[in-house]
Amino acid sequence: MTKRIAILGSTGSIGTQTLDIVANAPERFQVEAISGGYNSKLLIEQAKQFQPKIVSVATKELAAEVALHVPSQTKVYYGEEGLLEVAASTEAELLVTALVGSQGLKPTLAAIEAGKQIGLANKETLVSAGHIVTEAARTKGVALLPVDSEHSAIFQCLNGEKRAEVAKLIITASGGSFRDRTREELVGVTVEQALAHPNWSMGAKITIDSATMVNKGLEVIEARWLFDLPYDQIEVLIHPESVIHSMVEFVDRSVMAQLGNPDMRVPIQYALTYPDRFQTPTIPLKLAAIGKLHFREMDYERYPCLRMAFESGRQGGTTPTVYNAANEVAVARFLKGEITFLQIEQVIEGALQKHESFANPNLALIEEQDAWARAFAAAIRF
Amino acid sequence: MTKRIAILGSTGSIGTQTLDIVANAPERFQVEAISGGYNSKLLIEQAKQFQPKIVSVATKELAAEVALHVPSQTKVYYGEEGLLEVAASTEAELLVTALVGSQGLKPTLAAIEAGKQIGLANKETLVSAGHIVTEAARTKGVALLPVDSEHSAIFQCLNGEKRAEVAKLIITASGGSFRDRTREELVGVTVEQALAHPNWSMGAKITIDSATMVNKGLEVIEARWLFDLPYDQIEVLIHPESVIHSMVEFVDRSVMAQLGNPDMRVPIQYALTYPDRFQTPTIPLKLAAIGKLHFREMDYERYPCLRMAFESGRQGGTTPTVYNAANEVAVARFLKGEITFLQIEQVIEGALQKHESFANPNLALIEEQDAWARAFAAAIRF
Repeated sequence: MTKRIAILGSTGSIGTQTLDIVANAPERFQVEAISGGYNSKLLIEQAKQFQPKIVSVATKELAAEVALHVPSQTKVYYGEEGLLEVAASTEAELLVTALVGSQGLKPTLAAIEAGKQIGLANKETLVSAGHIVTEAARTKGVALLPVDSEHSAIFQCLNGEKRAEVAKLIITASGGSFRDRTREELVGVTVEQALAHPNWSMGAKITIDSATMVNKGLEVIEARWLFDLPYDQIEVLIHPESVIHSMVEFVDRSVMAQLGNPDMRVPIQYALTYPDRFQTPTIPLKLAAIGKLHFREMDYERYPCLRMAFESGRQGGTTPTVYNAANEVAVARFLKGEITFLQIEQVIEGALQKHESFANPNLALIEEQDAWARAFAAAIRF
Repeated sequence: MTKRIAILGSTGSIGTQTLDIVANAPERFQVEAISGGYNSKLLIEQAKQFQPKIVSVATKELAAEVALHVPSQTKVYYGEEGLLEVAASTEAELLVTALVGSQGLKPTLAAIEAGKQIGLANKETLVSAGHIVTEAARTKGVALLPVDSEHSAIFQCLNGEKRAEVAKLIITASGGSFRDRTREELVGVTVEQALAHPNWSMGAKITIDSATMVNKGLEVIEARWLFDLPYDQIEVLIHPESVIHSMVEFVDRSVMAQLGNPDMRVPIQYALTYPDRFQTPTIPLKLAAIGKLHFREMDYERYPCLRMAFESGRQGGTTPTVYNAANEVAVARFLKGEITFLQIEQVIEGALQKHESFANPNLALIEEQDAWARAFAAAIRF
């Protein structure tokens, strides 16, 4: 049986690995639509290989260029409209939301509205609008299938289990590229150093987010919505090897864990083929060769961004939106060399302090507060 | 809802822990029958506390003694008949088979015949007569629920999963009390040293079996029957901490694991309450406090008893019976000081070499070969 899929963010790290999975088992999937931001060259290649009905790029100019090279039956869109077309207008049964940032929110909601399953890799969707997205999915009877390795691990640990018997989720964190540095040693670290993640090969934004632990913070908030559990039942544990991708402790103190080599293609494929499992193009885990797995307590003073994520999540309303939006701008400014690594957290902290939280916001209010936080984060000077 | 249970071997390590679970949640369980070998004192205490309808001891003399002290409505039996009464004659829905050795086979079959679920802690049942016991359970539609921590772990990893998508079972082994000794350093080890298991508090027989790795061998054969997988899909991995109780690798290379502190009450309770989970009187796992988990390849030259278990299992027929029976006698002789630790494996090897295997044996033939192996193992001199 062929599954028809669409991909938002097909030229990014998760997007290209999703297409790897498709290429590895072409009889199992059909790519209906892809969107690819600014990387028109790769998008054109992908369009030639997978023959989607729709492609979308960031701008009108890129769309014109792409249109010259894609198969003649492929429609080309751009901008926000393009994302919505890719998300909702095809026959796809499942949409992989692999684009970065809060731009993923509206197309995800459009896909849910159209009854499509969601392979959720855009964590900002749940961070900013978890109450809206999960409610929409429930109403439409649509599954939100996690693609993130941590959430996929938890999802797999919950297979055949009862949600009411969960004691807590234990999300593992590698500690990122600076895990062995003290806070003092973080002064003056370079962009290049921050981009060297020890275990996973990922995009720049998420690699910086791993170093600040914002990524784990976003995962905590995402987990709260995906698995419908309060923050008191979500714990983060440092596990440098990223072999145990996350765990669930049940009321009987039995702990289920999902393990594997760090290879995103495994959780991506699981979201695509759930509840079935098929072979993946990855190598088996050899624990004897690894020898040791390490664990240590999360240190919330070392990683204030994670503490702020829990606080933002607990406050709820528009606060997680501000946390996320301020971080996006701060990371972009760090990557451009405008601010230092440690100033990322100061940007977030400043935005959270200035922000007045609104409870139970609708999309318009979320967008407004998102814009406010971005403007604040862009303007702050040190 | 009260579950009615019976326990074979209530005075042993698994039996007393099963009663711990009952005492911890008396509203959830009712003890219908217990059998207790030679420990009449403890059995009397248990009978007073749990008020079973039937108790059974090893001998007529012990039965007469016990009858004087148990509640008047409690019937007292002894010997093989007593085991059958405990196993099959009450209203119990589930029988925990926690007695040691091949004496567990007939009462287990009687309980299956009577339609009772089996909480399987007597691994020799499946080792000697896996083809008969699993076939009887299938015919009667009776569940064989593993109590062993390793098999319970695998059973939990298979929750909500498809058997056809299993790539392999990974059974962890602590390495036993002598795991850091070379074979040369095993010469002249004492009974006392062998009984000092690093992680688990268990009976003497199983502790010695852990040191020789016979216990793991029996578990491998048991797993083959419980989970209906060939030996090529069963692997043993040394994991000294016994925190990961076992794992399942699926075809997509995703590995599910079950973890916990070494406390048999968790898997025992899971067998009693499956598919539900309830709180257990154990402490939560704190991986950060443990810090490190270690893994290394199994060494089949260091542990020839495990190699012989795989070979016996692959040969099948009456060979696993002989492996197990010869070991039982050899361990008893070691505990009595008649043979050395390393001679345990020589007894098994000698019996396997002398034995002619019969394929697909019935119970009578299994008993005959079991008796032959015992006689051989008792007679062999060094």
